[in-house]
Amino acid sequence: MQSSPQDASGGPLRVGLLGLGVVGSGVHRLLQRNGALIGRRAGRAIQLRAIAARDVARAREVAGAGVPVVGDAMALVTDPDIDVVVEVIGGCTVARELVMTAIAHGKHVVTANKALLALHGEEILAAAQARDVVVAFEGAVAVSIPIVKALREGLAANEIAWLAGIVNGTSNFILTQMRQRGTSFDDALHEARRLGYAEADPAFDVDGVDSAHKLALLASLAFGTRLAFEQIDVAGIRDVQLVDLQCAERLGHRLKLIASARRHGARVALRVGPALVPAGSLMAHVDGSMNGIVVQGDAAGQTMYHGAGAGSLETASAVVADLVELARAARVPARDRVPPLGVQRDEAVPLAGLASHEVSTPHYLRLTLAPGSGLDDVLGRLAAACIRVVAQADVATRDAAQGVALMTAAAPGSAIQEAIGLLARGGVTQGPVACLRVESLQ
Amino acid sequence: MQSSPQDASGGPLRVGLLGLGVVGSGVHRLLQRNGALIGRRAGRAIQLRAIAARDVARAREVAGAGVPVVGDAMALVTDPDIDVVVEVIGGCTVARELVMTAIAHGKHVVTANKALLALHGEEILAAAQARDVVVAFEGAVAVSIPIVKALREGLAANEIAWLAGIVNGTSNFILTQMRQRGTSFDDALHEARRLGYAEADPAFDVDGVDSAHKLALLASLAFGTRLAFEQIDVAGIRDVQLVDLQCAERLGHRLKLIASARRHGARVALRVGPALVPAGSLMAHVDGSMNGIVVQGDAAGQTMYHGAGAGSLETASAVVADLVELARAARVPARDRVPPLGVQRDEAVPLAGLASHEVSTPHYLRLTLAPGSGLDDVLGRLAAACIRVVAQADVATRDAAQGVALMTAAAPGSAIQEAIGLLARGGVTQGPVACLRVESLQ
Repeated sequence: MQSSPQDASGGPLRVGLLGLGVVGSGVHRLLQRNGALIGRRAGRAIQLRAIAARDVARAREVAGAGVPVVGDAMALVTDPDIDVVVEVIGGCTVARELVMTAIAHGKHVVTANKALLALHGEEILAAAQARDVVVAFEGAVAVSIPIVKALREGLAANEIAWLAGIVNGTSNFILTQMRQRGTSFDDALHEARRLGYAEADPAFDVDGVDSAHKLALLASLAFGTRLAFEQIDVAGIRDVQLVDLQCAERLGHRLKLIASARRHGARVALRVGPALVPAGSLMAHVDGSMNGIVVQGDAAGQTMYHGAGAGSLETASAVVADLVELARAARVPARDRVPPLGVQRDEAVPLAGLASHEVSTPHYLRLTLAPGSGLDDVLGRLAAACIRVVAQADVATRDAAQGVALMTAAAPGSAIQEAIGLLARGGVTQGPVACLRVESLQ
Repeated sequence: MQSSPQDASGGPLRVGLLGLGVVGSGVHRLLQRNGALIGRRAGRAIQLRAIAARDVARAREVAGAGVPVVGDAMALVTDPDIDVVVEVIGGCTVARELVMTAIAHGKHVVTANKALLALHGEEILAAAQARDVVVAFEGAVAVSIPIVKALREGLAANEIAWLAGIVNGTSNFILTQMRQRGTSFDDALHEARRLGYAEADPAFDVDGVDSAHKLALLASLAFGTRLAFEQIDVAGIRDVQLVDLQCAERLGHRLKLIASARRHGARVALRVGPALVPAGSLMAHVDGSMNGIVVQGDAAGQTMYHGAGAGSLETASAVVADLVELARAARVPARDRVPPLGVQRDEAVPLAGLASHEVSTPHYLRLTLAPGSGLDDVLGRLAAACIRVVAQADVATRDAAQGVALMTAAAPGSAIQEAIGLLARGGVTQGPVACLRVESLQ
């Protein structure tokens, strides 16, 4: 059998691992444990040649005798005996420099670093294209779920209308705790920290930033467009109140942190924020630290993907799957590889953004009636502002004032905000009005 | 850029389509509608060169002026101007001959024909290997869901412990109708026929045979083993009674037609049959004609895939995804392609079967007490046979006799059958005892 001109070797794929933290040690463990099986799947051995770690002594303890550990990561990414660099350090400074240097030295890169790709993906992918090397990142989104492969290859024949997902396990764990145990956000965050689901600084997770990094990748894969992190409208779950989770339930919905990308003609609305999803949808049943993503294609219809969104071996599963693919892809010309974002870079179109408040969806409102006003006053004002209410539920409040939760028909967020202003100025409500989008998943 | 020696062409991938029924017309429509997008994803155009159909006049009407329609399928599969044959005729006689001839003429094959692959896959894949051509079949299992790609590539680093799925839309539609509307099997089947979800002869669907065809493929992909359709223990849903759906619900479960493959040491138990799944699992929420598959990997943990299991464009989505992959794979040497079943044929091990009744799972029993005996008599006899009961519910019966539904702790099916015999012989129960497996999905 003839081999491609680029690499005549039937020898092992030689891997250098950057970082031996949670993910790195998972990659090391998985390659050791399932090495024979992985080699059968890949068609040749995948050989861990060297590990670079900050704490060399500790890393040597973790890695055992089999694999040399070095402290100088730069030596590893320039090592001529390494074919592919696995970057699982995280962050955007050191990781970026190492990845760019690896590419400059003609090495393929596998990374699980969503922040790096969302913020510097254009630069990295351009450099990779210039050097004919692969940048693979299945581990960067909803790690245990092969969603990159599904969007890029499995659904390749589809015009994607929209996708929506729960892609941050920490915030989903917190919302699930709040709903199931009736606790506040602060108490649930405390519990998430205690169980190791949340970092000491949980900002990236609970403020929606991590979800937005992943959404940038998902949207680019789905629509065949350039990465556009800066176009994402991002909100987190710090202000979510238990009462809203409960009211959502009574209105036939569940409150989740949803990352969504939806095409409206030639424009795409990208958004991360707390939202209500129908209680009967599978998305409503994505609980705890799990991730779930729904994709609407024009041929496949709706498909849904569910699995762990974090974890050592879970992320390693995706990283090693990328290595298995590379074992073949490294030997063929670049044109015969699947492009990183699904289409060749020169064919990717820029994403024309659509501001979130222009998008028409149902909305959830929770408000407190001002003394002397009734529900009819609220409904009347909303109707005057062309906002139709389709469901309602009373809210038990600690003070005597009457609380009401409402579900509106589809309307743009801007119109909803205007109507909320009218209610307040008309003296119909008192205090703040809670307002959340409803993702109907249709 | 250099191309591989096998195909220096940057020209279109030239497709011949066998059959213009439900799936064939979907493939034709999708290639027309999304042709530009598909070409961008594939890196070159995918060109439908010719269609072979039995009813040429009707096919010309469907296909329009763009693509020539011929009546002689044999001419199409031997046409030197065709690179890949898409077989969507179905059945195992004509389809088999055409596929084998296409392969003998050096053509790649894309098929959605699960029966053909489950029954004749070994012969077909051996011939394809000998001629260095691809046989692709994403459309053969849970069509809109890219599960073949997920098992073969996305989860490539995992030792798969088990998988379980609802992979027949017709029978799932019938069970969903029965549960939601409280109708009998016969009435639900009638409704499925009326709505076009069931064929005039629904035997393949409701007797579990279609699910078994798909399970043969799934198990082979998951475990890297040869196809072993004949080892599958198959039962259907004709005997499922409404009362069992209702009792399952009261015991915290749902009754579904489940195809499952589970590794026990070096052996694998393959089974299709009605079974109870926990009401809180996503699988319990796979309703109507949808399909859902759960896979347990040793690294990824549990991942779940959900989508339409049938339909014209839904199947076409999978078939064209295979063509997109072929647009690249056709140009590279065989060793740089993903093998059809995930590992090279000479590395696939035969599947050592484990009979279903040897497998230990919880069981559901529904029985009618004999006059004069009580629940304690039943529990006593079961305990004597080492069967522990973990939940129970009364069953309303039309006659005065008392009905009871029970859930046992895990026990082999053979032990359960023995205990049922003891109950009857001891005069504790009267009439038949309904017995169903519980798939705990753990």
